[in-house]
Amino acid sequence: MVKSLTLSKAYRLLNHGPTTLITSSHNNKHNIMAAAWACALDFDPPKVTVVIDKNTYTRELIEASGTFAINLPCVAQKNMVKQVGSCSGRDMTTDKFAQYNISTFAAQQISAPLVEGCVAWLECKIIPEPHNQNTYDLFIAEVIAAYADERVFSDGRWHFEGYDDLRTIHHVAGGAFFATGESVQAI
Amino acid sequence: MVKSLTLSKAYRLLNHGPTTLITSSHNNKHNIMAAAWACALDFDPPKVTVVIDKNTYTRELIEASGTFAINLPCVAQKNMVKQVGSCSGRDMTTDKFAQYNISTFAAQQISAPLVEGCVAWLECKIIPEPHNQNTYDLFIAEVIAAYADERVFSDGRWHFEGYDDLRTIHHVAGGAFFATGESVQAI
Repeated sequence: MVKSLTLSKAYRLLNHGPTTLITSSHNNKHNIMAAAWACALDFDPPKVTVVIDKNTYTRELIEASGTFAINLPCVAQKNMVKQVGSCSGRDMTTDKFAQYNISTFAAQQISAPLVEGCVAWLECKIIPEPHNQNTYDLFIAEVIAAYADERVFSDGRWHFEGYDDLRTIHHVAGGAFFATGESVQAI
Repeated sequence: MVKSLTLSKAYRLLNHGPTTLITSSHNNKHNIMAAAWACALDFDPPKVTVVIDKNTYTRELIEASGTFAINLPCVAQKNMVKQVGSCSGRDMTTDKFAQYNISTFAAQQISAPLVEGCVAWLECKIIPEPHNQNTYDLFIAEVIAAYADERVFSDGRWHFEGYDDLRTIHHVAGGAFFATGESVQAI
């Protein structure tokens, strides 16, 4: 059901601007946060930008490990996305995965866990750019592996028809999202 | 119908990841291109990132003027978005606005024209970052004015119900877009 993507097509997972979950891991500490500000930066090799605030626990883990995963959550996961976006893993006695009963599976090339029930995943390796990180909280990373749930993404395209609960989501503010909507083909 | 936004709410125009049109102007030369890789970077003052390839005419104009506008096109404009994203203004005897019969109105603080029929507009001033621009084609800019069509955006939120032709659009590839879909509220 989860299928690997040719890396040159990985940008198509992010091109429509979905909200993401960033997972991270270092020294057996794991975390997850919501991030709407993730964007494709290049096609091949695929690169992405993502904004990660200095105060987040995720920031500490990704700067230590040099890697993170971008998970694309879907309509069925909207409440979880709001939950993990509204608290810090630093303050917890356990971690957000246990706290919110979030199942994960192992990535292939990085230590960050991948979130079950998401519809796509990108394993990312940070390209160190200290000025961007310190001045703008902006990270640039190369995508080194990418997967998608083939029920809704295959042959380089999304097809959500018949799977409304698996549509990707787009955050506006305060837990208000839009689902990815109808296909519209330009001529 | 077009209403100014408090700048601290400008990020909400881009937060859901719509595809954009970048307009530019310098020395009485004007251009327009499609850009899916535009993303919020900060809240207040609002900043954005946008990826503008070295080979584009837009790149030449925005580096010369130091400014550009982000326009948010809607479903009704899908064919125009594909058209202006599929050719270069450098190769034309006229310009893309004349070629594709695109009406514009004047921005308040920059020279780039704003596109009529779009549903939101952000006037942007480049924060020069030569390393990002040269290495990644990545521009960082501050948003110095923002407006939206109040039929679909007011009081800091989008409301597309009843205006399907004014829904923002999200490009995947090859002229295939998704319309911004149903509202989904997390609890």
